[in-house]
Amino acid sequence: MADEAAIHNLLKELRDILQDDFILTEETQLRPFECDGLSAYRQLPKLAVLPEDEQQVQAIIRLSHKYAVPIVTRGAGTGLSAGALPHPEGLLLVLSRMSKILEINPAAMTARVQPGVRNLAISEATGRYGLFYAPDPSSQIACSIGGNIAENAGGVHCLKYGLTVHNILQIKGFSVEGEPVTLGCGGMDNAGFNLMPLIIGSEGMLMVVTEITVRLLPIPEHVEVMLAAFDAIDTAGQAVSNIISAGVIPAGLEMMDNNAIRAAEDFAEAGYPRDAAAILLIEIDGAKSSCEEQLQKISNILNTSGCTSLKIARDDKERALFWKGRKSAFPAVGRISPDYYCMDGTIPRKSLAEVLNTISTLSEEYGFPVANVFHAGDGNLHPLILYDANIPGQLERVEEMGARVLEKCIAVGGTITGEHGVGVEKIRQMPLQFTDAELTLFHKVKAALDPQNILNPGKNIPLLKHCQEYRALSQNRVPENLISNLTPAS
Amino acid sequence: MADEAAIHNLLKELRDILQDDFILTEETQLRPFECDGLSAYRQLPKLAVLPEDEQQVQAIIRLSHKYAVPIVTRGAGTGLSAGALPHPEGLLLVLSRMSKILEINPAAMTARVQPGVRNLAISEATGRYGLFYAPDPSSQIACSIGGNIAENAGGVHCLKYGLTVHNILQIKGFSVEGEPVTLGCGGMDNAGFNLMPLIIGSEGMLMVVTEITVRLLPIPEHVEVMLAAFDAIDTAGQAVSNIISAGVIPAGLEMMDNNAIRAAEDFAEAGYPRDAAAILLIEIDGAKSSCEEQLQKISNILNTSGCTSLKIARDDKERALFWKGRKSAFPAVGRISPDYYCMDGTIPRKSLAEVLNTISTLSEEYGFPVANVFHAGDGNLHPLILYDANIPGQLERVEEMGARVLEKCIAVGGTITGEHGVGVEKIRQMPLQFTDAELTLFHKVKAALDPQNILNPGKNIPLLKHCQEYRALSQNRVPENLISNLTPAS
Repeated sequence: MADEAAIHNLLKELRDILQDDFILTEETQLRPFECDGLSAYRQLPKLAVLPEDEQQVQAIIRLSHKYAVPIVTRGAGTGLSAGALPHPEGLLLVLSRMSKILEINPAAMTARVQPGVRNLAISEATGRYGLFYAPDPSSQIACSIGGNIAENAGGVHCLKYGLTVHNILQIKGFSVEGEPVTLGCGGMDNAGFNLMPLIIGSEGMLMVVTEITVRLLPIPEHVEVMLAAFDAIDTAGQAVSNIISAGVIPAGLEMMDNNAIRAAEDFAEAGYPRDAAAILLIEIDGAKSSCEEQLQKISNILNTSGCTSLKIARDDKERALFWKGRKSAFPAVGRISPDYYCMDGTIPRKSLAEVLNTISTLSEEYGFPVANVFHAGDGNLHPLILYDANIPGQLERVEEMGARVLEKCIAVGGTITGEHGVGVEKIRQMPLQFTDAELTLFHKVKAALDPQNILNPGKNIPLLKHCQEYRALSQNRVPENLISNLTPAS
Repeated sequence: MADEAAIHNLLKELRDILQDDFILTEETQLRPFECDGLSAYRQLPKLAVLPEDEQQVQAIIRLSHKYAVPIVTRGAGTGLSAGALPHPEGLLLVLSRMSKILEINPAAMTARVQPGVRNLAISEATGRYGLFYAPDPSSQIACSIGGNIAENAGGVHCLKYGLTVHNILQIKGFSVEGEPVTLGCGGMDNAGFNLMPLIIGSEGMLMVVTEITVRLLPIPEHVEVMLAAFDAIDTAGQAVSNIISAGVIPAGLEMMDNNAIRAAEDFAEAGYPRDAAAILLIEIDGAKSSCEEQLQKISNILNTSGCTSLKIARDDKERALFWKGRKSAFPAVGRISPDYYCMDGTIPRKSLAEVLNTISTLSEEYGFPVANVFHAGDGNLHPLILYDANIPGQLERVEEMGARVLEKCIAVGGTITGEHGVGVEKIRQMPLQFTDAELTLFHKVKAALDPQNILNPGKNIPLLKHCQEYRALSQNRVPENLISNLTPAS
C-alpha cells in the first residue's frame, strides 16, 4: 500500500493536472467526504480530487496506479452499503463535477451522460421527448448515475423495468492502467465477452466509468395507483404472489407493515389506514385501456386474497400523496427514532411470511423495534431497525441483528443485497452466500483487471482468509465493533 | 497443447468413468460431430464424450485439465458461428444426454433444467401452467438451452422479451479445474461480481454449465399478427423506427426483402405479396384490449408511413401461416440456391437503408444474390448470401463479402453479432469492433478463469498478435481460404 512518499509525489504531479481548488487535503475539506449514505462507517481519505473531464480522470488514474495509491470513486455519496467509504491510505476520486448530459437521441431512445448526472436529471431532460429513464432509487433526486452503476441501483419500478444493469446500453471509462475502454453496444447482444454487466454493480473495483449511454423508455400514457390494506402481513404477502402469478406485472408493488404505515402516516398524511397490519401500494402503467383491464384484474385478486380495504387514487394529486407516504418512509422513521439501520436482503416471495416472523422474533430478542418497507414484487426487503447510536453498544447489536436477518435471507435461498450493494456493510455475509470456489472466481477476476488492488480495495469481496472466521461468526455470534474495523477485507 | 500420450492417458482414465459406448474415438463415430450449424467449418476432434450427469462432467473436466487437453462443449450443434467446432487436439464434451427438466416452479415462474434440454421443450413442459420460456431462436425445435447460453441466443421475440441473458436467473456448472460454481440468484441483483452475464455468450470459454434456472413468463392472453407491404426497403425501415419511437414494443417485428419474400412464398405459400419490395411481420401480444389498442396505433403509423397493403391475420391458422413464411425463409432460400451464407450483424435502426444499399452494391460487385431477412425491431440483420460451394473459390469470396458487410455494420456504430455469436466465423472482425485495450480485457478475463486455455481455445477472442493483420485485411481485402485456417486465434 501507498506510503507518505508516494502520496507526496502523487500530490506533486496532481498539481500539474488539476487546479489546487480541486485537490483537497485538509481535514476540514475532507470531512464532508468521510462517509456515504451509511454514516455508521466514517473514514477520511488521504486526499480527494474533483476532475472536470475524462482527460483529468485518466491522468489521475495513471498517477495513482504509478504510485500504487488506492482509488475510491465517489458519485453523490448516497450509497447505503459504504461502497464509497474512503480508504485511509487512498485517493477519493469525486466525479460530481462531471455532470453533463452529452447527448439525447430520441429516435434511438438513448441518452449519453457523464457519471455525475443526477438520476432524476436524466428524466427531467428527456421528458420533453416523452421519454424517461426507468430505474428510480428513493434517492433519485440526489444520487448520480455513476453511483447507480457502481451499486446496480434499483427502485420502486424495477419490478417491471429492471435494475440499472437492465437499462444501460454502453459504458466508457478507464482501466486501472488508465487505458480507455468502451463496453457494451447499441445492440442487445455483445461480441466477445459480456463485460458491461460485470462492471455494473462492481462498486468501482474493476474500472472507472466516465460516460454512460442509458436506455430511455416512452413515458407511460396512463398511470393508476392502488392502496390495499390487510389485517395480516402474510395475507398481504400471499396477495403479492397471487398478483404476480396471474401474469400481471405492475410498474411498482410495495409493501409496508404497521410500524412503517404509522410512521409514514404521521409524517406525510398520505391517507394510509393506521390500523392495518400491512398495506400494498400498487402502480399500474401503460395504455389507458390496458391499465383499466389490469386494475380490474388486480382488484379481483385483492378481493379474493383477503384485502380489507382498497382505495384507487382519484387523480394525480392523490397518486402523489399515496407515493409520498412510501417515499418518505425512511425520514418518517427517522423522526420517531434517533437512528435507524436499513437492511436490503432479497428473498423468494413465498418465504415472505417466514422471514418476517424471524425479523419480529429478532426484534423482540434484541429489543429494537422494526419498521418493514419492501419492494414486495421482487422480494426485496428493507427492514428499518430503530435504535440510538448514542447509547453505547446499540449500533453493534443492531449490526449483529442485521447480520442475522441477512443470514435468514440466505437460508431461504435469497441474497444479501437487492439494490444497495455489499460495500463494507455486508462483506461478512458474502462467505455465507458464496462458496470459496465462487469467491475465488471473484478474486481471479479482480486480480485480472486490477492486479495491484488499487480500485476500491477492501469492499464487496472478502479475502478468503477471513471467510472461515465470518462463517464461524454467523454460527456463534459475539457482538463486535464493526466500526473499529472499517475495511474487513483489506 | 495435448500430445498423443496425454490423449492416451486421458482415454485410459475416462474409461473408468464412462461406459465405452459414450466415449467416441473412431472417425465414423466422430464424423457427425465435425461441425455445428456453420458447416463450412469442419474438424474432427480427438475424441468425443457423452456424459449423463454432473459427476461425470466434473470428472471429465478434471481429467482434461490434468492432461491439458482442450475441451469444446457442444449442445445440439445448431450454432451458426462455428462456436462448437471441435478442436483438432481436443475432447468434444457433448451434453445432449443431459436433457432432464429438473423442476418447474409455477409460483416462482421458474424452471430448472439441464443443458441438453431443447429450447422448445421448456415451453412445452411449462405450457400446462400457462407459462413459457421467451427466447425463441429459429432453431428452437432442435437447439438446446446450453447452446443458447453459450451463444446468448435470441429469436423473433427478443425485441420485447430480450435475449437468453435476460431470461436466465441462475447457472450452475464447473470451473476449468472442475470446481462446482453457482452464479446468479433468484433475485434481480447480485452480491459480489455479476459473473453470470459474463458466462452467457462466452461460448464455453470460461466454464462448463450443467444446470440452468430460466425465468418463465405467462403465456400472453391474446396475439395479433400483421403483414404490411412496402414498395421500398427504406420506407419499411422508416416505418419500423416510427413504430418503436411511438412507444409500441411489438412482441416481434420482422422484415423481409423481395428476394426473401419470393423464396418464402414459393416454399410456404404464406400469402405474402410477391411483388413487394419489403414486408413487415408484426406480432402484438398481451391483454385483448391492449392488443386491440396497439393494433390500431400500429395500423395508423403504417398507413402514414407508406405501407401499400396491410393484412391482419384472421385466426390462429393465418397467424401460423404468416409466421411459417418467415420461419421457413432459410430452408426456402436453401431451395433456390445450392448454398447460402447467413450473416448476423446488428445496426442502429436509422442506418438500415444505408447498410442495405451497401449490401446490394456488394451483391452486384461479387455477383452473389442476397436475400435479406431481419429482426428489424432490434436492428439485427440476417442477409443470406446465395452461392455454390462446389464452384471453387466461391465460398472464399462469400466469406470476404460477408466480412465487408460486418465491417459496414461496425462503421455505422453497430456490432458484428446480434444473436449467433462470434465463434470462428467472425473472429477476424473482432479487432475492427474492439481496440487492443478492450481485447486485452477479454484476454485477462480468459486467462484469469482458464489460465491454460483449455476451454474452447481459439474461438471468440482473437490473439492480439493477429489483430493488426486482421485490421489490415479489412483495409486491403485479398481472398483467402478461411477453411484452411480453422482456428485463426489458436
